[in-house]
Amino acid sequence: MSMNQNYHRATPSLHYTNINPQVIKAEYAVRGEIAIRADHYAKKLAAGERLPFNSIIACNIGNPFAVGKKAIKFPRQVLSCVENPDLLQSKDIPEEARARAAEVLKHFPAGMGAYTHSQGFDFVRNSIAEYIKQRDGGAPSMPDKIFITSGASAAVTAILTMIISNPNCGIMIPFPQYPLYTAEIALRNGRVVPYYLKESANWSLDINELNESYSIAQKAGVNMKAIVVINPGNPTGSVLTAQEMRSVVEFCEQNNILIIADEVYQFNTYNPEKPFISFKQIVTEMKSGVQLISLNSISKGFMGECGHRAGYMELFHIPEDVQAQFYKMASVQLCSNTVGQIILDIMCRPPQSDECKKQYIEERDGELNNLKVKSQRLLKCINSLPGLNCQPADGAMYLFPSIHLPLKALEAAKSVRINGKHIAPDMFWSLQLLDETGIVVVPGSGFGQVPGTHHFRTTFLPEAEEMDAVIDRLTKFQNQFMDKYT
Amino acid sequence: MSMNQNYHRATPSLHYTNINPQVIKAEYAVRGEIAIRADHYAKKLAAGERLPFNSIIACNIGNPFAVGKKAIKFPRQVLSCVENPDLLQSKDIPEEARARAAEVLKHFPAGMGAYTHSQGFDFVRNSIAEYIKQRDGGAPSMPDKIFITSGASAAVTAILTMIISNPNCGIMIPFPQYPLYTAEIALRNGRVVPYYLKESANWSLDINELNESYSIAQKAGVNMKAIVVINPGNPTGSVLTAQEMRSVVEFCEQNNILIIADEVYQFNTYNPEKPFISFKQIVTEMKSGVQLISLNSISKGFMGECGHRAGYMELFHIPEDVQAQFYKMASVQLCSNTVGQIILDIMCRPPQSDECKKQYIEERDGELNNLKVKSQRLLKCINSLPGLNCQPADGAMYLFPSIHLPLKALEAAKSVRINGKHIAPDMFWSLQLLDETGIVVVPGSGFGQVPGTHHFRTTFLPEAEEMDAVIDRLTKFQNQFMDKYT
Repeated sequence: MSMNQNYHRATPSLHYTNINPQVIKAEYAVRGEIAIRADHYAKKLAAGERLPFNSIIACNIGNPFAVGKKAIKFPRQVLSCVENPDLLQSKDIPEEARARAAEVLKHFPAGMGAYTHSQGFDFVRNSIAEYIKQRDGGAPSMPDKIFITSGASAAVTAILTMIISNPNCGIMIPFPQYPLYTAEIALRNGRVVPYYLKESANWSLDINELNESYSIAQKAGVNMKAIVVINPGNPTGSVLTAQEMRSVVEFCEQNNILIIADEVYQFNTYNPEKPFISFKQIVTEMKSGVQLISLNSISKGFMGECGHRAGYMELFHIPEDVQAQFYKMASVQLCSNTVGQIILDIMCRPPQSDECKKQYIEERDGELNNLKVKSQRLLKCINSLPGLNCQPADGAMYLFPSIHLPLKALEAAKSVRINGKHIAPDMFWSLQLLDETGIVVVPGSGFGQVPGTHHFRTTFLPEAEEMDAVIDRLTKFQNQFMDKYT
Repeated sequence: MSMNQNYHRATPSLHYTNINPQVIKAEYAVRGEIAIRADHYAKKLAAGERLPFNSIIACNIGNPFAVGKKAIKFPRQVLSCVENPDLLQSKDIPEEARARAAEVLKHFPAGMGAYTHSQGFDFVRNSIAEYIKQRDGGAPSMPDKIFITSGASAAVTAILTMIISNPNCGIMIPFPQYPLYTAEIALRNGRVVPYYLKESANWSLDINELNESYSIAQKAGVNMKAIVVINPGNPTGSVLTAQEMRSVVEFCEQNNILIIADEVYQFNTYNPEKPFISFKQIVTEMKSGVQLISLNSISKGFMGECGHRAGYMELFHIPEDVQAQFYKMASVQLCSNTVGQIILDIMCRPPQSDECKKQYIEERDGELNNLKVKSQRLLKCINSLPGLNCQPADGAMYLFPSIHLPLKALEAAKSVRINGKHIAPDMFWSLQLLDETGIVVVPGSGFGQVPGTHHFRTTFLPEAEEMDAVIDRLTKFQNQFMDKYT
């Protein structure tokens, strides 16, 4: 077959130099080079190979179950019944869980195998709206303004798809940020307009910085569409005050831009003086007409149910004809998965019976307290080490320490290339950490940082023994690293 | 607060005329105007209001559980255990299901709450590769070329994102087609290049039509990137022969374009003379180097587990550096949900014990036979009615009858507008069907059809009683419709 043989010699249809260049531009450090190398090491360890460490500890991603978290039982009990209704009478499952499962199946007789409404189950959106109302001191929330999505990430994708209408559209992003934002903006050929958080003031948001960043971008011809605020902060762990939030709302009113409030860590606050306040509540209290889309997720908080992929966005002050376009785009992908939706329902409407409520509250509070304790333990370790310095986390699941790299280390970093490209100095540090200890973190350069500064992001999720290992290995590593390069 | 009051008067930041125009252009008929109106009627019925019908019957979407399907038990039994490992010892669950659950948790000790690898669980990709190998007569399949996605729709999105690099990029799409394709191409500002299937020859694929369509597009300056083939066909129900498939492969070799093989109905064939053959098998047998991406799903076939959102794509002859870009984009959305992945595993690696295997096979074969019987029953009804004419379905879940609209009906259709816009004649017919019978179908104009012809797509999914109602209501409606307009 000579034609086939000819074909084999031709350049294939799809090749690196003719794919969408925006895909190539998009970068996502959390599962980038370091994660791939860690995978590689994990496979070697599993095959019995000897490495300088005996386990990989994944501190690169907010994935609590991967580092020892136990599931909150009630949602799992309900799920076992809705998936397998033969268990609705099983004595192996508590009564309230079975009753809740029966209620779900009454609302949705087709069961877990059917597509739901493109915005998600009606009854789950009712629970979410009720949760939001309670959370925000009674401000109304409408189920029909809520879209359940396949994780909050899918909501971000939907929003950016909607608002980036040409390459001139700008989105203000906190630096450091969660790199989903810069990746998805790059993919849509929009313009990232960074505003830097103030590390020295515990990564707080500075309104002067917002104004300055905005006016520089405006002079450069950017048509600003929205600002992303991540609160509690990822990767910074900072929590905004009501005063900071009001200044953001006023800024958005003045400049007529949308607020995208990434509030997926709203349950994760650890400092009683810095409680979580939602943007919806602030906008409502100010009687502002500013447009707002708020995000939440089951992947974070105390549930940590990342693998079940569910989140939601609530539209506020978004015109109906724009909402209809969100609906249409949601319907092209049909709906988010049913199981995640049920967990969302339970997160917003926890169990009430004596039997299940007590356990649920113990698990929830235990988890949140545990996160706080682990955060403080890791912070103390990091701040005791030479060359590292870290702000405390008032919220979220991460620490974002700065690394003071000695000149010799900066020089050494310059000589390393990956895939032919020079690497950032904090990538150099993070790769050495991985190679020598098996600890996986993400270099600060993947999140955005003030030029000339270096950081890394680590979760504080590992449970007891794994956290011991992190502290032990990191301490040894950093002391040796500083000895070697000073 | 005068500033806030001023703000209220300003044009909001996000409004219909400044959102992404490609979003507005995208159309998705399956959940469009008709589905919205049907929702509205369903709410009225639920509130006790009287309408000309007492139920909505959703024949607009391949969503088997919504119209009476029962779940295949084994996957649900496994799921109940992996979600709630307290049940690993429960006597209420068969032994093999518990053993399978234990195996899953051994492979993935973190359990269902953790993110998986961005391409999906390793062990599930192994099962998929083994299934593909068996299906294709032993041709090798590599787990690392498989990406598990949140339904096959998400795979289509990923592929189109990758290949549409500028507004000149063309994708050949069968007309009629599943409107996900035109919607996602419109969203990315690519060019839809239709090739028409031959209705008179049971919607078969005509190679001359492919060549003609290609050369017209080429003269118009289109840079053709890929061809989508849906086999078994949606909405047509046709199944390709090996000869037709070989001619498609040769066409793609000649023109150096990628094949996107949408094979989500691969289990759904009803004519022993038209078995399903995969494009992977044909490309392999021909020793062709043509590039191919094949799709499959748990939403269709005999599982019908739409709500669990899982599918996969297999890359064949795609360069590694392009695959790395697919991986990066998958990782931005982290992973598809764990539960759907487990169902995929079971679809590809069914139970083996006496206890579970027999039931599984009975359920599977019963479901497939049931689909065949229902398809024939509905076909017979449609072909007995005046003004309707339908090809039989050799596969998939749909019939796509043509509607011969009398002149008076065409005139009447011209006077109807929705949201200020004229509607297609088959939309007029479908809306009347809904208004008078509660049956929800999708007008052919949403799928693409030869200009001047009119069709509708209906699933043949409704179970016994509901199918009786469909046949009864449709018969009455169509007779009256023809009386009224002839």
